[in-house]
Amino acid sequence: MTSISTGQIELHRHREQFPALANKTYFNYGGQGPMPQRALDAIAQAQIHIQDIGPFSGEFYRWLVPEYKAVKEAIAQELNVPPQTISLTEDVTVGCNIAMWGLEWQAGDHMLLTDCEHQGIVAIAQEIGRRLKVEITTCPVMATLNEGDPVDAIAQHLRPNTRLLVLSHILWNTGQVLPLDKIVEVCKKNDVRILVDAAQSVGSMPLNLTELGADFYAFTGHKWLCGPAGVGGLYVRPEALESLKPTFIGWRSVVIDSEGKPVDWHPDGRRYEVATSDFPLYAGLREAIAIHHEWGTAEQRYQEIRRLSEYLWRSLTALPDIKCLRTSPPESGLVSFQLTNNKPQASVQLVKFLESQKILTRTIADPDCVRACVHYFTLESEIDQLIEEIQRFCALGNG
Amino acid sequence: MTSISTGQIELHRHREQFPALANKTYFNYGGQGPMPQRALDAIAQAQIHIQDIGPFSGEFYRWLVPEYKAVKEAIAQELNVPPQTISLTEDVTVGCNIAMWGLEWQAGDHMLLTDCEHQGIVAIAQEIGRRLKVEITTCPVMATLNEGDPVDAIAQHLRPNTRLLVLSHILWNTGQVLPLDKIVEVCKKNDVRILVDAAQSVGSMPLNLTELGADFYAFTGHKWLCGPAGVGGLYVRPEALESLKPTFIGWRSVVIDSEGKPVDWHPDGRRYEVATSDFPLYAGLREAIAIHHEWGTAEQRYQEIRRLSEYLWRSLTALPDIKCLRTSPPESGLVSFQLTNNKPQASVQLVKFLESQKILTRTIADPDCVRACVHYFTLESEIDQLIEEIQRFCALGNG
Repeated sequence: MTSISTGQIELHRHREQFPALANKTYFNYGGQGPMPQRALDAIAQAQIHIQDIGPFSGEFYRWLVPEYKAVKEAIAQELNVPPQTISLTEDVTVGCNIAMWGLEWQAGDHMLLTDCEHQGIVAIAQEIGRRLKVEITTCPVMATLNEGDPVDAIAQHLRPNTRLLVLSHILWNTGQVLPLDKIVEVCKKNDVRILVDAAQSVGSMPLNLTELGADFYAFTGHKWLCGPAGVGGLYVRPEALESLKPTFIGWRSVVIDSEGKPVDWHPDGRRYEVATSDFPLYAGLREAIAIHHEWGTAEQRYQEIRRLSEYLWRSLTALPDIKCLRTSPPESGLVSFQLTNNKPQASVQLVKFLESQKILTRTIADPDCVRACVHYFTLESEIDQLIEEIQRFCALGNG
Repeated sequence: MTSISTGQIELHRHREQFPALANKTYFNYGGQGPMPQRALDAIAQAQIHIQDIGPFSGEFYRWLVPEYKAVKEAIAQELNVPPQTISLTEDVTVGCNIAMWGLEWQAGDHMLLTDCEHQGIVAIAQEIGRRLKVEITTCPVMATLNEGDPVDAIAQHLRPNTRLLVLSHILWNTGQVLPLDKIVEVCKKNDVRILVDAAQSVGSMPLNLTELGADFYAFTGHKWLCGPAGVGGLYVRPEALESLKPTFIGWRSVVIDSEGKPVDWHPDGRRYEVATSDFPLYAGLREAIAIHHEWGTAEQRYQEIRRLSEYLWRSLTALPDIKCLRTSPPESGLVSFQLTNNKPQASVQLVKFLESQKILTRTIADPDCVRACVHYFTLESEIDQLIEEIQRFCALGNG
């Protein structure tokens, strides 16, 4: 037996831990990751355990405190930051809301977004603009996918009154990885704070936020980390903590005195947390993170994602009826492509056809395209199957 | 067999559906309700089902839409309101945040709270006060537990610039039920909007919010409804919808155009929802609500809660070393009492002693007391046991 086939056996064993992978061909990691059975079990067991010891009791709190600490530590290790810089949230968008509403905006301030941000983030900016009389503009990074420099595109749109730049580390529509280190450098020079929507980067690429230097980094556990939907978080750089005020607030945010009156914010990320959550999910996210480490380091997983996304990109590029958005191999696990026939609803029809074959992809509205994601445990045979079914769809007169 | 013992057998069977009740004597319903096994099962099954059909797929959305609709309908039925007036949130405090931040405050406006609001709500008010230059004051309703009129206490503290009154329907510390209908009347006359913290009322008393007329009513599913932690909601009166702006925003809040750009708020409660949640919890809350209906109507459950809380109150009142905060039988399931010995940490010591006997109660900081809650399925024998152990604690030299 060669080492390659040993590796393949190990990969198949690793994949067996994810029940969602058993009955379909999955390319929606950027939408939601499949959960490992151990994560599902940890959540169910925690629910039952809480009923056994509480649900509301001293013993419950003695259980919760180390669980809460452990999930923050697991996340902090992924991001290379101290655990006290992490706030737990329900999802990535809540993290973005905390950062966007928490700056003390003055009328006439300016907030810059890229033209590739998710609709939820755009809507937050619009409402802040309306309510607090903040100027909102966007800069064109979508056009820098294949040529040009996103750093220039951003730098040219900063203004003297710009206080915050909002951008994604990996663009959810095109899969482009923005050079965050260079962008941070430009922003620091201009005294502009940076919020990063890290929905697509956490769990898919190695990260050292301490070195990167972004102020706010909002993420979710339920995409590339394959944790449960309902837990995400926000990293706040220690230097930025005092400038970011808590907005949505609750008992988790505050220090209380002996009469139960709030007298201060917690000195760490807890100040941005609100109140009761589905705490069993923490155990699930922790298990999911542990399972990725059993396979390899963040760097090894990212290299495998890139190897597989290049394989997918090359296979798609070879198809006559398909055009990949990128003209060079992808830097992330997200691969977006279009049908060249220009028929209306072509992307929607292809995604539907693929789902009927148990192959899961999704459409993106802008630019109009289909997005297929590969994770480190995607099989080349799955990619081959996707390519085959796309060819079949085109041959059926849709190409 | 008499009808009473048939009822008792039925009650014991009903209680068997709640695993948390099997190994302890539970009086913390105001903290968190025990979950029925069917709710635990529904959540676990939904998690597995999502892995089977997705997790991110067209089929998943076809599953989610009716689940989401069904839980809103179940909640709306409890509150006697149309389902589209409900927003789902992570907890009651998020609901309060939505209402408190969403009014377009002007510097110099006034917000009135009672002196019995939860620390999280007080902290929100303080931050709104600081950031938006809104005056925050409190009115003394704690003192109206046994004499005086909370409506007068509130009315006397309204000012010409008061825009919002924040109060609890049932006070979490003393268990007092505020006469919301009369308070709404006073507020309407003065053009003051009302936010109700309904943490202790939803699931414990019959409600008709359409008749009551409060503008905003924030609640949770994990206390008296015995649903999972992590799902709550906010009712917004249709007449108040346009005046309440979404603050924390996400893809769930907005209507998008064909390019995925946000162009409007959803016309209903969705506008206050943010993004991805732990959707399986919806099935759990729905099951929990259904199980209460199998026992009896909201009115029947409330009558039983009052019968049992009166039994608890009378038993406590008869103890020489105990003083109940109330001098007349309780109007809710919350019964708060003090040890008359005035020893420091007496409440904490008693709660710890009771927990060592598997009897779960909690302390309250202001007023310093112990709180024991009864639900409609509490047994008189559980109350007898609590009384016996309190007597034992006092006889041990603590009384």
